[in-house]
Amino acid sequence: MKPNGSRLRLLALVVAAGLAAGAQAVAQTDPLSSWNDGAAKKAIVEFVQSTTTQGGPQFVPPGERIATFDQDGTLWVEQPVYSQIMYCLDRVPAVVKAKPELAEVEPFKTVMSGNREAIAKLSMKDLEKILVATLTGMPTEEFRAEAKKWLDTARDPRWKRPYTELTYQPMQEVMKYMRANGYKTYIVTGGGQDFVRVYAEEVYGIPPEQVVGTAGGTKYGYDKAGKPFLLKEPRLLLNDDKAGKPEGIHLMIGRRPRAAFGNSAGDKEMLEYTKAGDGARLAMLVLHDDATREYAYGPAKGLRASKIGTFPQSLFDQAGKQGWVVISMKNDWKQVFSFEK
Amino acid sequence: MKPNGSRLRLLALVVAAGLAAGAQAVAQTDPLSSWNDGAAKKAIVEFVQSTTTQGGPQFVPPGERIATFDQDGTLWVEQPVYSQIMYCLDRVPAVVKAKPELAEVEPFKTVMSGNREAIAKLSMKDLEKILVATLTGMPTEEFRAEAKKWLDTARDPRWKRPYTELTYQPMQEVMKYMRANGYKTYIVTGGGQDFVRVYAEEVYGIPPEQVVGTAGGTKYGYDKAGKPFLLKEPRLLLNDDKAGKPEGIHLMIGRRPRAAFGNSAGDKEMLEYTKAGDGARLAMLVLHDDATREYAYGPAKGLRASKIGTFPQSLFDQAGKQGWVVISMKNDWKQVFSFEK
Repeated sequence: MKPNGSRLRLLALVVAAGLAAGAQAVAQTDPLSSWNDGAAKKAIVEFVQSTTTQGGPQFVPPGERIATFDQDGTLWVEQPVYSQIMYCLDRVPAVVKAKPELAEVEPFKTVMSGNREAIAKLSMKDLEKILVATLTGMPTEEFRAEAKKWLDTARDPRWKRPYTELTYQPMQEVMKYMRANGYKTYIVTGGGQDFVRVYAEEVYGIPPEQVVGTAGGTKYGYDKAGKPFLLKEPRLLLNDDKAGKPEGIHLMIGRRPRAAFGNSAGDKEMLEYTKAGDGARLAMLVLHDDATREYAYGPAKGLRASKIGTFPQSLFDQAGKQGWVVISMKNDWKQVFSFEK
Repeated sequence: MKPNGSRLRLLALVVAAGLAAGAQAVAQTDPLSSWNDGAAKKAIVEFVQSTTTQGGPQFVPPGERIATFDQDGTLWVEQPVYSQIMYCLDRVPAVVKAKPELAEVEPFKTVMSGNREAIAKLSMKDLEKILVATLTGMPTEEFRAEAKKWLDTARDPRWKRPYTELTYQPMQEVMKYMRANGYKTYIVTGGGQDFVRVYAEEVYGIPPEQVVGTAGGTKYGYDKAGKPFLLKEPRLLLNDDKAGKPEGIHLMIGRRPRAAFGNSAGDKEMLEYTKAGDGARLAMLVLHDDATREYAYGPAKGLRASKIGTFPQSLFDQAGKQGWVVISMKNDWKQVFSFEK
């Protein structure tokens, strides 16, 4: 039996050595390879390591590992116009076709004119009318199919690519890295919950149930064949922006996040709420300061003002005071998009 | 090298045999051991097996494996009064202490009198006033702490046990069995979402984010020290009962369940919605026909009528027509509670 026993031990050693080599290979692959070394990358790695070190002072049990990410401007491009607004504008002709009386009614008349300058000047109230007309009044499954069709064919005006390709590679890496360490990643967006859920799984690896967004009510009913369906109603349940973000997090998740990522004044309350919890908490803000590779707007640090993705100096100051980490797109990101390779 | 090679093959065979023996041992342990053999148990096992057999005609990808469970009367005892109502009644003295002017105002005066007969006669409108007074107006974390304290000390009048021990062992087994097969289990309850989230993880292994319930709004604000908190408001966002169940499922989960379990007319729409999806779907109803071990009420099959957990004959008939499976507590459950052992 002895030679056999020693062979088994030898085999065990070989297997163990193989496993160790494998582990080393994994450790050598940087999960945040699109990030330059710096304070932002360091903050992410240190947070994940300290909260997942069993027995460490900052250890967080797996169930409590919740990380929330704003979408527009944090996970993907939000300039010059939110892609969901583009969807709604593109849907107007179909709405007018179904209800021809709208062709002569504002704001539909302006949208149908195709006059870009006039469309850009539409008021918030006009925009709301367009959102209601294009996002409600149909069964949830019909909406889903329409949105999917648009996402497959629409192209961003600058990069001439599907909007879903305009996600930030470094943020995709953060989400993957956190998930690999037991974090449940959520999108918490001012955008429409139903809209983002159409593509979040394919684009970010985030399932529908982990998308929290601005949400309207639905109404349960039956079609002529007696088959039940949910009709999207023009009734706002959750305005998932500013204070609505922690309120939405409580409603949909029921736990305070351990980490939160944003890029604008709309994320202020989510970051405050996250940081106000006990133990280790991470709050980060993406600063768009890279006019060459993406956009530069703020106006923190003297960048140009923008109606979309406001990042006022006051938010920058609050970040400094409350220990939030600002990510400089220009300096912290080695690569912005996956298609740059 | 040859002897060595054959030793390795031998070792591989030994390892494989060990694994096979392990698998067999697992297969021999019945995951539904509190169930008697019958149509109900068979329906559950066949559904899980067919939807998890890779390459099979009814295979469901892991991400789409969503199972929803009503709570009161489906996962735990709902008679003679929902435990959350007991919580609200028990909280009235504290509310009156904080606002002494309520002592002479109905329905608080009746509750403070301790007259059980009079309390049992309170109208739905009175009950609503009590719910608003005891479930809203405080920070979410204060509510959580109060509810937890009550759950630790309150006892059910019949079994003299914490309410959290009155869960049905067979249903606990179904949830574990489904989770072991890649199903995400959700509670979808007419009860308060915040209330059920306090204990769902400990009692059912269901984390807060997988509890969908009747939900009110919260309001984000800051305390005197500038620390943010969420105040529970008397503003109904979701009445998670009847048609509100599929509406709540769409809002909070965003996918149609593959399996749904209920016990009353309040679950009708959830079961219809679940069964209306394509592919394999499972819909089940618990019928309380066991007056000895639990309660018998319905009034399907001639059981006594009850204000709580209505199971009219029409629901029984619909189950038959639409292929829902009725679980007879008396005949299908070998054991009702874990403490019976």
